[in-house]
Amino acid sequence: MNRAKWMWKYGEYEIYHNMLLHSRRQAFGVDYPSMWPVAAPAPWAEFQTNFSNEKPGYLKLTAVGTGYVVIDNERYGTEQRIEVQPGEHQVNVRIISPEGLVCAYVESDVCPSGEGWYTEALPKRLGEKMERQPVGCVPEYLDVHTTPEVFPFSYKRCDPVSKKQVEGGVLYDFGQETFGRLGIENCSAEEIMVYYGESQEEALAIKEAYLRESLRGQNIYYLRSRAFRYIFIKGNGLEDIRVYYDYEYLPLEEKGSFTCDDALLNDIWKVSAHTLHLNSREFYLDGIKRDRWVWSGDAFQSYMINNYIHFDKEIVRRTILALRGKDPVEAHINTITDYSLYWIISIMNYYHSYGDVEFLKYIYPKMQSLMDFCETRLNEDGFVEGAEGDWVFIDWSDIDKEGAVCAEQILLYAAYKALEDVAKLIGKPYEEYKGKAETLFADINSYYWNEEKGAFIDSYSSGKNHVTRHANIFALMFDFATEEQKQSIIDNVLLNDAITQITTPYFKFFEMDVLCKIGRLEYVTGAVRDYWGGMLKLGATSIWEEYIPELTGAEHYGMYGEKFGKSLCHAWGAGPIYLFGRYYLGVHAFSTAYQTFRVEPKLGGLGSIEGKVPVNGGTVWVKANEASVTVKCDVAGGTLIWKGREYEILPDVEVNITA
Amino acid sequence: MNRAKWMWKYGEYEIYHNMLLHSRRQAFGVDYPSMWPVAAPAPWAEFQTNFSNEKPGYLKLTAVGTGYVVIDNERYGTEQRIEVQPGEHQVNVRIISPEGLVCAYVESDVCPSGEGWYTEALPKRLGEKMERQPVGCVPEYLDVHTTPEVFPFSYKRCDPVSKKQVEGGVLYDFGQETFGRLGIENCSAEEIMVYYGESQEEALAIKEAYLRESLRGQNIYYLRSRAFRYIFIKGNGLEDIRVYYDYEYLPLEEKGSFTCDDALLNDIWKVSAHTLHLNSREFYLDGIKRDRWVWSGDAFQSYMINNYIHFDKEIVRRTILALRGKDPVEAHINTITDYSLYWIISIMNYYHSYGDVEFLKYIYPKMQSLMDFCETRLNEDGFVEGAEGDWVFIDWSDIDKEGAVCAEQILLYAAYKALEDVAKLIGKPYEEYKGKAETLFADINSYYWNEEKGAFIDSYSSGKNHVTRHANIFALMFDFATEEQKQSIIDNVLLNDAITQITTPYFKFFEMDVLCKIGRLEYVTGAVRDYWGGMLKLGATSIWEEYIPELTGAEHYGMYGEKFGKSLCHAWGAGPIYLFGRYYLGVHAFSTAYQTFRVEPKLGGLGSIEGKVPVNGGTVWVKANEASVTVKCDVAGGTLIWKGREYEILPDVEVNITA
Repeated sequence: MNRAKWMWKYGEYEIYHNMLLHSRRQAFGVDYPSMWPVAAPAPWAEFQTNFSNEKPGYLKLTAVGTGYVVIDNERYGTEQRIEVQPGEHQVNVRIISPEGLVCAYVESDVCPSGEGWYTEALPKRLGEKMERQPVGCVPEYLDVHTTPEVFPFSYKRCDPVSKKQVEGGVLYDFGQETFGRLGIENCSAEEIMVYYGESQEEALAIKEAYLRESLRGQNIYYLRSRAFRYIFIKGNGLEDIRVYYDYEYLPLEEKGSFTCDDALLNDIWKVSAHTLHLNSREFYLDGIKRDRWVWSGDAFQSYMINNYIHFDKEIVRRTILALRGKDPVEAHINTITDYSLYWIISIMNYYHSYGDVEFLKYIYPKMQSLMDFCETRLNEDGFVEGAEGDWVFIDWSDIDKEGAVCAEQILLYAAYKALEDVAKLIGKPYEEYKGKAETLFADINSYYWNEEKGAFIDSYSSGKNHVTRHANIFALMFDFATEEQKQSIIDNVLLNDAITQITTPYFKFFEMDVLCKIGRLEYVTGAVRDYWGGMLKLGATSIWEEYIPELTGAEHYGMYGEKFGKSLCHAWGAGPIYLFGRYYLGVHAFSTAYQTFRVEPKLGGLGSIEGKVPVNGGTVWVKANEASVTVKCDVAGGTLIWKGREYEILPDVEVNITA
Repeated sequence: MNRAKWMWKYGEYEIYHNMLLHSRRQAFGVDYPSMWPVAAPAPWAEFQTNFSNEKPGYLKLTAVGTGYVVIDNERYGTEQRIEVQPGEHQVNVRIISPEGLVCAYVESDVCPSGEGWYTEALPKRLGEKMERQPVGCVPEYLDVHTTPEVFPFSYKRCDPVSKKQVEGGVLYDFGQETFGRLGIENCSAEEIMVYYGESQEEALAIKEAYLRESLRGQNIYYLRSRAFRYIFIKGNGLEDIRVYYDYEYLPLEEKGSFTCDDALLNDIWKVSAHTLHLNSREFYLDGIKRDRWVWSGDAFQSYMINNYIHFDKEIVRRTILALRGKDPVEAHINTITDYSLYWIISIMNYYHSYGDVEFLKYIYPKMQSLMDFCETRLNEDGFVEGAEGDWVFIDWSDIDKEGAVCAEQILLYAAYKALEDVAKLIGKPYEEYKGKAETLFADINSYYWNEEKGAFIDSYSSGKNHVTRHANIFALMFDFATEEQKQSIIDNVLLNDAITQITTPYFKFFEMDVLCKIGRLEYVTGAVRDYWGGMLKLGATSIWEEYIPELTGAEHYGMYGEKFGKSLCHAWGAGPIYLFGRYYLGVHAFSTAYQTFRVEPKLGGLGSIEGKVPVNGGTVWVKANEASVTVKCDVAGGTLIWKGREYEILPDVEVNITA
């Protein structure tokens, strides 16, 4: 018999915490709700189970909300011990709560809450059966006194690394980008102002610092969780104050690693890891200072990177559920066309990593309804466009966005393919999506491929034949381009300096990904050193939202018209973790959920590389230089590919190949 | 310039209070959430307005939730006075709140919240415009300190009419069925039990009383609102306690009245009025003791009755919105097939009474999506059936419910007609619904009309050819039957004592309605005296959920296997108000919203009748006996029909016809 766990209607936990998360942002002391509507958790739930017991037992219901339990047709309230005679039993728990997350805990020696309990939905059609869905529950909530309304973060108390008096107050440096609850003790000042800074310049800029709080009248303060490296406290009589913070984090195991003979790249990996970890919370955030929201395109990259460091299925699953919200779909995810499409595509990526077919069954109708919404935005040529109020983002770049944009169509193609694949896997009709993908494939080639430019153009309706990297990167990334097109794109776009450079680590990551894919690792090694290394050389302790090498000094911190508007800890900056793990250590799933996987180490111009990569349920260790390679793994399914030859990797048997 | 009002996203106020309402039921001291899922209010809203001002002005935002206001591209927090320079302005308010009802109050001399503000939805299709919806606001919320989270009930302090010592405690009689918050003062007992009773027997039945509360440790108690006439307080040392209650009610004006020369009928009208008023709250309830929920079939009748007493558009609108909940439709309204169909039909009834075409535009998509859900329950013959988990209710009666049931099909027919009518009124394509209604009309006649029985049978698939009153009543009520069928139904069903009698005032009302419709008022006069009068003779101070004349004593109070399970104050009992107003005083709308209306007084075997009926914006007074009729009205549009002749009723001009 399992221990009882708190349980909820599957998916509601994510909806609830997503709602809380999106109500926490502030800017310049003003609350800043998300730009998009967020869904509310259902205020009502019914949980059921069936069991038989040979010995007498008992159960006791505790609930967030009010409600009752019915067993053997008798109704009982919460917090009552109910004796259960031997026999067959059906138990129903019904709970309502106008606030919070409706959930239940059944202490019992015959039917503890958690696995084995389910919720029911009415049949979709006459003649069909009620649909059962296992309840949501996770091992973090075994204790009846800690409800799932509290997210299980870990905390660690930390002191500043240094402090100094500055005009009007004291500046504290905590040594690196971090996140947590600031504590101030022994404060005799009647009134103080606290300014947070990801940079020292920001903390000291009392007009422009993005995060701040005005405090008065107490001796001890304990503030809400915020991002910072520097804290500037302004006020009089601060001589005796003690300042610390409780680092708030998700306790994730670092299952992946990477080192090489290039110290800068090692630092880039570490700073990337720090960046991703800070942004790994209830869900993958974009950035911890700003926006502290969940963005689908950003999360799409975090899922990829996660495979090479934490391999945490749960944060991916939670993020997918949170992003999708509830039906009916009334807007694109994050209001962005591309972000809806990434979400659909991400489901197959999740499946490919974790092999969770039950999740596919749950999520498939939501993929369909989101695609139905996307299809309300198709133009007469069958291409997706932005309707009034939609946002066609792609990237912060000068893309020609007139009419239907090529990058969106390739995402739409990949989304149709994902729907086709998921439908096949769960035994649903897939032909319609297959047909749509095929038609779209032909149409994209006919409307967007420009022979003269040897590339996909952004827009066919503007007449400008403008070429940017983005659509062409997608064409390689989603295996859309033919071999011939691919070569042309490499020459005419990717390695063509006349095509505008990418300025965000976001699309820089996609660009590096396809360059690695086509074997240009040496080029990528250099580009990562330049681009990510460029930030580190400017003192970054986490990777930024955007990096434009031409800027100088504090100019780097501005964005969106705000002097410190840029996020200096942006998840989409952590891409090198993926690149090093996927292409240098060369580990990747060859079949679903790493039942088979490949290890194809490549040096990319480096002298030596070393590291580990999580594979489902195990870890593969890799060490390579020009002369030799050593690989070990604690689970089966691996194949080493080294200099054109294949070697089976048996569990716990080191493979050592020397030239 | 209007005064500022609290505003919310249209429809959310009703969703919020519906959620609260359905979390309040208790039974035997145990919380009892509704049987069906209830919707949650949206935790996020954006309100917008545009205005231009010639003089400088200001605004200040107060919100339930956190958020900001943007004016002229500057963002400000709540509770800040913002100066507004002369010019053209666009204002956006965005609010999020993980609990409660998201709403906003803008104090301003240039753009006060309320009328003129709107919310936006994305276009449904590419090329369409953003959709604007005026915000929800009502005149009850002018005060910034009283948010719309508090429903604006009125209160009146009342004392018991009598009390007596009984074994173990004190029994209080409050004189009649009522509802409110019980107060107990000066209580020296350490522990007391409070039992509520709609009957004396119930209050004294400490094991079976439906409502109860255990109290301890205080001197003063103030309990939650509940229904009762009697209160039994059990405990020791109750000599000095003071017991009272605060009557909690919706302040509705009694715009209709009816008296005649039969004192029993006058009492029936009064008790019916008391019954309806007690059940008129946030929404129309079924009953104030049990279930205190909102049921669509029950509400459908309350809407009809409302026209002849309160003519309160707002409670009808609120109830329609609350019942419908939100998309996607995952179950029938109240889980009942017929109750979904009544809801669709009710929209045209609402329109017919109030002429509110803006509401039609808002609600039509919700009518469609509910019908889409109903159509997932169509069998191969095109008739609606109950799928697993659906409830085919119709009435508490021995209807043959095998397969598709006739009464449901006639409701489905009427629902298609309502969709057709609404679509026409708002300029949407209606042909599909028209076609479906026509096909269904033919099919119902071919499958359910039984020539031998001269009536519609319940089920065609059972082979039993069972006839009940219900489907046949609907055939007349919804003008479904041909003249020939009508006559046959009257003889073979309505006036045939061999057909099982109806036991609920619910369907008794529909039965009386069609009997009046076919002119059998004398019969109805007698039936109302017998049936409703039967309850009054047993001491009823409000009308019951069910009345079976054959029962005796406290047997009358039992239902659903509970000794006091019956509701003794059930809204569906108030039908006589409608009957007397509609058929005896004879007032009814002849065109939408009473732009023209008819007054056709009929005595129904009575010596004299007198009363008033609200017509939109006015009142018509009627007085009639065999020899003469007097009619007066303060608005235009009326026509008196008396003994086959028509007389125009001019505003404020008494029409007096003497034989």
